[in-house]
Amino acid sequence: MEPLSKIISLADRARPLKKSNIRTISQAVDEVGGINLGQGICDLPTPDAIKERTHAAIDADQSIYSHHAGIEALREGILAKAQEYNDLPATSIDEVVVSAGSTGAFVTAVMTLLQEGDEVILFEPFYGYHRNILKLTGATVRYVPLGGPEDTFDPEVLKAAVTDRTRAVIVNTPANPSGKVWSRDELASLLAVMQEHDIVAITDEIYEYMTYDDADHVSLGSLPGAYERTITLSGFSKTYNVTGWRLGYAVGPDRLLEKMGLMNDLFYVCAPRPLQHGMLAVFEDLGDDYYAELLDGYYKRRALMCETLEAIGFDVPRPKGAYYAFADFGPIRDRPGFSNDVEAADTLIREAGVGSVTGRSFFHDPSDGVTKLRFCFGKELSVLKQACDQLLAAFG
Amino acid sequence: MEPLSKIISLADRARPLKKSNIRTISQAVDEVGGINLGQGICDLPTPDAIKERTHAAIDADQSIYSHHAGIEALREGILAKAQEYNDLPATSIDEVVVSAGSTGAFVTAVMTLLQEGDEVILFEPFYGYHRNILKLTGATVRYVPLGGPEDTFDPEVLKAAVTDRTRAVIVNTPANPSGKVWSRDELASLLAVMQEHDIVAITDEIYEYMTYDDADHVSLGSLPGAYERTITLSGFSKTYNVTGWRLGYAVGPDRLLEKMGLMNDLFYVCAPRPLQHGMLAVFEDLGDDYYAELLDGYYKRRALMCETLEAIGFDVPRPKGAYYAFADFGPIRDRPGFSNDVEAADTLIREAGVGSVTGRSFFHDPSDGVTKLRFCFGKELSVLKQACDQLLAAFG
Repeated sequence: MEPLSKIISLADRARPLKKSNIRTISQAVDEVGGINLGQGICDLPTPDAIKERTHAAIDADQSIYSHHAGIEALREGILAKAQEYNDLPATSIDEVVVSAGSTGAFVTAVMTLLQEGDEVILFEPFYGYHRNILKLTGATVRYVPLGGPEDTFDPEVLKAAVTDRTRAVIVNTPANPSGKVWSRDELASLLAVMQEHDIVAITDEIYEYMTYDDADHVSLGSLPGAYERTITLSGFSKTYNVTGWRLGYAVGPDRLLEKMGLMNDLFYVCAPRPLQHGMLAVFEDLGDDYYAELLDGYYKRRALMCETLEAIGFDVPRPKGAYYAFADFGPIRDRPGFSNDVEAADTLIREAGVGSVTGRSFFHDPSDGVTKLRFCFGKELSVLKQACDQLLAAFG
Repeated sequence: MEPLSKIISLADRARPLKKSNIRTISQAVDEVGGINLGQGICDLPTPDAIKERTHAAIDADQSIYSHHAGIEALREGILAKAQEYNDLPATSIDEVVVSAGSTGAFVTAVMTLLQEGDEVILFEPFYGYHRNILKLTGATVRYVPLGGPEDTFDPEVLKAAVTDRTRAVIVNTPANPSGKVWSRDELASLLAVMQEHDIVAITDEIYEYMTYDDADHVSLGSLPGAYERTITLSGFSKTYNVTGWRLGYAVGPDRLLEKMGLMNDLFYVCAPRPLQHGMLAVFEDLGDDYYAELLDGYYKRRALMCETLEAIGFDVPRPKGAYYAFADFGPIRDRPGFSNDVEAADTLIREAGVGSVTGRSFFHDPSDGVTKLRFCFGKELSVLKQACDQLLAAFG
């Protein structure tokens, strides 16, 4: 690409931005008419109850700006859910801000808390948007690895990453891309470090309804002493198949959330109004069976995805949560086309018409992801089956 | 309010944020069950054609993320409109980014262009969000007044405000709050300064379909030599009565818009997907008569609003564009309750049940707005009539 016109010099935060690997792969998949298991988009249908309430809100011209923190009824629903499902000690809708997706809530939180000169701890493998948005704040990102047989962090490594400039730590549970679900003990161990060094946590829990086997979702903010220093983020995108609706939220201590609301006002004005009304269905219409069916479907998809990848020679740790398989093709690395993650992703597109995401997208040091690919199994089962058939036909 | 908990220190950009006067007034109006002519919210109905397409998009599960710059069909519609209505020399949808409202497009533009150490010129009276969002970039804002009998800027004052750190200038035409519509000559005079000092313009044209009398909307980017250094912003909120839908856009040179698209991805991921599909109605279903009827309605509202305020003693310059009367109560300042803008706004709420916005909200130096109030006449005519009746009954 040519350099930008000399007459237009960009801000430092804009200069390094480039098209992500995920986007590049999505385009390559489209070009061959393949199936994209790359981007974390879920193509399942939106529940009818949500659609019906949204139609009604549009017809009733619920179209003007809402309060910057969201319509009251939705904040009340989120508050009750935060109390009941997440065990958070929240007591008022002043502790809830609705934003433009959990990404909007994340932007709002980090822009409220972090600036140049601060440090923030990010566990890896990480979700790329977390890293890229953190960089926009000007803060320095310090990486702490998750891994080993227990897929956890080394407390000594965590402590060594803390300095007197450390202001915040990012937790993602269930995690993208690894599917790690943080245990209560791990959260307690992290909390002790947070308390000792006066650190705030921002926890992204967008996959909170997708945990498998013996894994239970635990919110850091539910631990005694944690809530006052924890901003809990979640949203509607993944659980209700509305990634493009841009509706997420933050829950946390009111004095902090008040500032976050004002920051949300500047960046977002408010979350999309008629869609906010539609989402009331989550709290008023959907019952426990919705979540049970959702989980049942994801168990089936997880099995299909992981068993297919194993059948073609990948090493596939079963994710405990979320809807990704973060698979290692190390065992078949000597095959042509699998020398590294970029080549392997390309090989899968060309030979099987299946898109995945390169492992390097999730690590500070690209070499840490060189034998890994991420596959999203949040797809209609028939589409996922087709993708798996194509993988087996090409590499089985 | 108590100070924020000692354990949570905020970023410098968050510390000064506080509830705006507009919000405070809105609450006070709600408390007395009054009519709010404060916030620039338009309570007119959304056109049926937009609703119908949105219903269809929701039913068809057009619910996943779109491209970060928006769905192609919408970008094509915007491109054609930018060519035909705005006379911009844009040639490709690569020059169009759909964002979360024109505010989202403004955030994306200034975050791409400005940082600490830069300077940016803002004409005043200004739109408060412009000033507040500019401050988030870290850039220093320099103010150039608009005013006098011609409601224009002094070219010498503009030149004196330019330094070698000046990177951008903000233009808002038609303007909030004054209703000023920039003439071609004024834009040419500004462009000459931009070209001499290598400055980029960001022009917010959200009220572009609302111009009155002899005023015509001219886009800066349509002037010869301007497009390569101009980002033109607009949106659907004001023209189609969907302020809460959060759909706006930027048009400008592709190499800059490519970076803006990537920035938009980080802050917004994408604009709300099903609502993007709904907005195709603007380009495919609505005809010229829509804009003629819209304007006809606003002429009536403008006359009613301005004549009412004059009848109670305000000095009311007729706005040439947008849907605000920026009125001066100087002539009745000796009446009880009108000593300054804050007191006057309060008096109008208490005695007439009508909300307005304090003049100081639009100036760097509050004393510049001390005898002014802004009234939004983007209201159902029956509601506006009621508000005017209440004003006449209380102060006529």
